[in-house]
Amino acid sequence: MTVHTEPATLAPLDERGRAALFTDARTANTFAPVPVTDEELREVYDLAKMGPSAANLQPLRVLFVRTPEAKEELAGHMSEGNRAKTRSAPAVAVLAWDTRFHEHVPTVFPIRPEMQDALEADPGMREGMGRFSATLQIGTFILAVRAAGLAAGPMAGFDAAGIDAAFFGDGRWRTLLVVNIGHPGAGAWFDRLPRLDAEAAVAWA
Amino acid sequence: MTVHTEPATLAPLDERGRAALFTDARTANTFAPVPVTDEELREVYDLAKMGPSAANLQPLRVLFVRTPEAKEELAGHMSEGNRAKTRSAPAVAVLAWDTRFHEHVPTVFPIRPEMQDALEADPGMREGMGRFSATLQIGTFILAVRAAGLAAGPMAGFDAAGIDAAFFGDGRWRTLLVVNIGHPGAGAWFDRLPRLDAEAAVAWA
Repeated sequence: MTVHTEPATLAPLDERGRAALFTDARTANTFAPVPVTDEELREVYDLAKMGPSAANLQPLRVLFVRTPEAKEELAGHMSEGNRAKTRSAPAVAVLAWDTRFHEHVPTVFPIRPEMQDALEADPGMREGMGRFSATLQIGTFILAVRAAGLAAGPMAGFDAAGIDAAFFGDGRWRTLLVVNIGHPGAGAWFDRLPRLDAEAAVAWA
Repeated sequence: MTVHTEPATLAPLDERGRAALFTDARTANTFAPVPVTDEELREVYDLAKMGPSAANLQPLRVLFVRTPEAKEELAGHMSEGNRAKTRSAPAVAVLAWDTRFHEHVPTVFPIRPEMQDALEADPGMREGMGRFSATLQIGTFILAVRAAGLAAGPMAGFDAAGIDAAFFGDGRWRTLLVVNIGHPGAGAWFDRLPRLDAEAAVAWA
């Protein structure tokens, strides 16, 4: 394996970038009637896929829902408070983990191909790794939406089994989170809710 | 609740920012003997805390390990292949979820204070929400390390129960991931492992 020594120092993100991804970034609650193209959604995925996952196994899968029919089907499985948002978003990402992600081990982790058999033999380990790393990847995905200049609206209130049955009939992908994607509409931003400061959430050793 | 209508359009992240966080970003495998200050680590947390979590509940907790004694204790609970990396990193973040994160409901989600009692009564729901949202926050945390101009080295190989017993003796915080933090050293970067392209990981509806 080739070893690279550069870069020796890393550039911090500038203030504009920090604002776009972290300090000014917010969950959008309404969307403008401005389309999001498939090219923009591919750009989101191509940024998101660069993030880390355990042993590079990348269990995250993405269903981009854009047609009115598919959005209506999806809205029916969202909790009531989320339906209008889902209908108004030009695109909605259903983020799932692939229960057979280990089939890609020869491609994504060629230095330890035997991991494929180990994961095939242990569905419990597979589910643990799959859910954990796919959720970690979702964290990257949401920031990738923002990096592409789009607003993200993550929603945890939905009937996962209903979405799985409607869209993943073979049972291979399992829904973890649903994220509205688009350009912010009127009244998109509520007041930011308080964040826990370091005194409440950080310890030192 | 106040409704804000600005900004109507969002700025995409520029190429330098995309390189720093996504396209050039990598897991660092060695670290230079350059200190990381507590101020830099606070900056990382203050960016990471801005990311999303379900109902803004922010179950993620961070233990920053910097002293030689604490790093040696931590290294003893890492898998063998991770020990040298942990010893060489100027700082190591133990990322955990707080089993009693719901105690902060009145602060972080004041619009539904009754969630605190519901979560107190249902430890299973608490564990599901806590692990999921803390893992999502870890995705944001790793990108926040990079946004601060530091290299991150996430490691999944460790004895979680051993770390919990050594550092979280009261059982309240539970370790999810360990991340080395510092400036890249000689040979920090291996070849990038392949990412799954959209054809393998994305579906459309």
